[in-house]
Amino acid sequence: MRFHTRKWVKPEDLNANGTLFGGKLLAWIDEEAALYSIIQLENSKVVTKYMSEINFLSSAKQGDIVEIGIRVEKFGKTSLTLFCEVRNKMTREAIIHVDNIIMVNLGEDGKPKAHGKTEIEFVKDRLGNQ
Amino acid sequence: MRFHTRKWVKPEDLNANGTLFGGKLLAWIDEEAALYSIIQLENSKVVTKYMSEINFLSSAKQGDIVEIGIRVEKFGKTSLTLFCEVRNKMTREAIIHVDNIIMVNLGEDGKPKAHGKTEIEFVKDRLGNQ
Amino acid sequence: MRFHTRKWVKPEDLNANGTLFGGKLLAWIDEEAALYSIIQLENSKVVTKYMSEINFLSSAKQGDIVEIGIRVEKFGKTSLTLFCEVRNKMTREAIIHVDNIIMVNLGEDGKPKAHGKTEIEFVKDRLGNQ
Amino acid sequence: MRFHTRKWVKPEDLNANGTLFGGKLLAWIDEEAALYSIIQLENSKVVTKYMSEINFLSSAKQGDIVEIGIRVEKFGKTSLTLFCEVRNKMTREAIIHVDNIIMVNLGEDGKPKAHGKTEIEFVKDRLGNQ
Amino acid sequence: MRFHTRKWVKPEDLNANGTLFGGKLLAWIDEEAALYSIIQLENSKVVTKYMSEINFLSSAKQGDIVEIGIRVEKFGKTSLTLFCEVRNKMTREAIIHVDNIIMVNLGEDGKPKAHGKTEIEFVKDRLGNQ
Amino acid sequence: MRFHTRKWVKPEDLNANGTLFGGKLLAWIDEEAALYSIIQLENSKVVTKYMSEINFLSSAKQGDIVEIGIRVEKFGKTSLTLFCEVRNKMTREAIIHVDNIIMVNLGEDGKPKAHGKTEIEFVKDRLGNQ
Repeated sequence: MRFHTRKWVKPEDLNANGTLFGGKLLAWIDEEAALYSIIQLENSKVVTKYMSEINFLSSAKQGDIVEIGIRVEKFGKTSLTLFCEVRNKMTREAIIHVDNIIMVNLGEDGKPKAHGKTEIEFVKDRLGNQ
Repeated sequence: MRFHTRKWVKPEDLNANGTLFGGKLLAWIDEEAALYSIIQLENSKVVTKYMSEINFLSSAKQGDIVEIGIRVEKFGKTSLTLFCEVRNKMTREAIIHVDNIIMVNLGEDGKPKAHGKTEIEFVKDRLGNQ
Repeated sequence: MRFHTRKWVKPEDLNANGTLFGGKLLAWIDEEAALYSIIQLENSKVVTKYMSEINFLSSAKQGDIVEIGIRVEKFGKTSLTLFCEVRNKMTREAIIHVDNIIMVNLGEDGKPKAHGKTEIEFVKDRLGNQ
Repeated sequence: MRFHTRKWVKPEDLNANGTLFGGKLLAWIDEEAALYSIIQLENSKVVTKYMSEINFLSSAKQGDIVEIGIRVEKFGKTSLTLFCEVRNKMTREAIIHVDNIIMVNLGEDGKPKAHGKTEIEFVKDRLGNQ
Repeated sequence: MRFHTRKWVKPEDLNANGTLFGGKLLAWIDEEAALYSIIQLENSKVVTKYMSEINFLSSAKQGDIVEIGIRVEKFGKTSLTLFCEVRNKMTREAIIHVDNIIMVNLGEDGKPKAHGKTEIEFVKDRLGNQ
Repeated sequence: MRFHTRKWVKPEDLNANGTLFGGKLLAWIDEEAALYSIIQLENSKVVTKYMSEINFLSSAKQGDIVEIGIRVEKFGKTSLTLFCEVRNKMTREAIIHVDNIIMVNLGEDGKPKAHGKTEIEFVKDRLGNQ
């Protein structure tokens, strides 16, 4: 799994208990899943269709740095299934993981559309050597 | 089920497909679950522990009004299990529902603590007639 | 009066005195008045034209839950006059009330337009039994 | 009247009609009144107590620049009464004005406290020549 | 130099050290430079091209009021070079200054376009006496 | 250089020209520099002291994905000098780079303090094999 994005836990990310607000964490995960899918599917029209159950394993507090990792579980015909883990950057302790996030590739008409991808690609390979 | 909160879908709530961003919806649900639990448990130290799987049934677009409803599924000893539905205010069409959201009641030490509640209470009954 | 929306007072809602910032409260009231009018007038092009004088009766602090209630005072030809109260959810203490908020119904051309409504309607009645 | 602050109308400041959202305008006014009072009263614990009625005279659209002006109407014993006008920077057209905004000076205990000021002061005079 | 905009340092503007976050300060400067240029060049399509080196001279803390000043250094054919200083309103202590900020005037096609200005103008002079 | 963070360009990140707002870009760079320094110096009290001149090489538009890379230029006694590049994820085109960002390590008293680091460390090496 690759961790592509880091977040700094700020006052506006906390709940009343003074720890990282769960809803903010879910919003970060959903955004990261969307970014990952857009890059892999080379299409900016991608939406979240499903998330499997979510256990909040540990929390984070103000000033902590968390990193968000994504791994592809399966390439469907019009979909992409991802695994996501968020962990504390300093201790590597898992904060949350979501086993299956299903993202759907849409066409111009807003309907599911085959994406034609079957494996992970790296942008550097698409661009040639750099 | 009672719907206590309405949200107006604004430009900052949209994804690249121009529809309501799933992560924003999850953050709204988590905040509403927290508010509901704080009121029922009469304790502001409440955190989200678990969410069951999530299907995105339909979407919403800019200018739509969505309302968020919560129903108690079960009172545990230190927890409260909620059902949540978000629907379009104008059409009543369901956008998302989450069957089980488990909220945990915390003590001053940040550890789970019995809340002593076994049924829904209304604030007006706590306060006497008004 | 019906209270349709709850807000959780967060750090970004406070003034330098550590209490709920008056400007944030006014923004919440204006948004709620707009939402209420859009639903009643079945038109999303509605703007605020006038607010009567505002007394800040009490305040709220971080972690408090406030609820915002609206009642119709009068249906005009192109306008809707509302009464708004914000109160503390836990104590029912009034925080602010605004006696008259005049909302104007606009046509596609951005000019006032008759809305044809004379009484409060409930969305469930518009949709039939559910 | 002096205009000390300018705002750029951005997408997040608009209502559903595509014009400047009234609630945002009220929040800007309240913040500017607080800033002005803090500087004049040399005390950061100042809160809004009252606003007289508000007429929305004209609106503004995305990309417009508005400027916010404040003038002192009266020095009370523990209060300061302000007049506020918001206008379009490019056309000088008035967008809104509020005849009386009463700000109250608080002591460390959060209660009204005499501020001892009777006229406008300029920071440069407090500091000596610069 | 004229100071046209004031900012109130709030919790969301702080870094982990509890002082004003440098990135927020740079965003405020860039916005002020854009506002200033739009007014002078009477064109809303203006972008930042260059900023000279930046020394953070002192900081500010929550509740402080800072003011942002701009002075024109040079009128180019398609550009405008500005000097910017941010200082603490109460003490007049400099927080940061940027010697050269080059703003470029763009045409409808998004390309640099001559702006035809050679000196500072005041909006009141453009509008006639008021 | 390693790219650790991705950002999705959203409506609130745009200037009046409809392209990525320079001030937002500078805020992202400053935050990333702070995160990087906190991790390397194992101290959360780190502040920005200096940025060398900044050329805006190209821009980005809504929906683009940009990535932010950091490289250490020099370990000082109490400081860390970084090089930063922001580029378009899809095309690898450079958007901006800043040759020198000097971050200063602070002690509990808010004064510069020796950090004792002389080379880049990886968190996984600090934690042992995982």
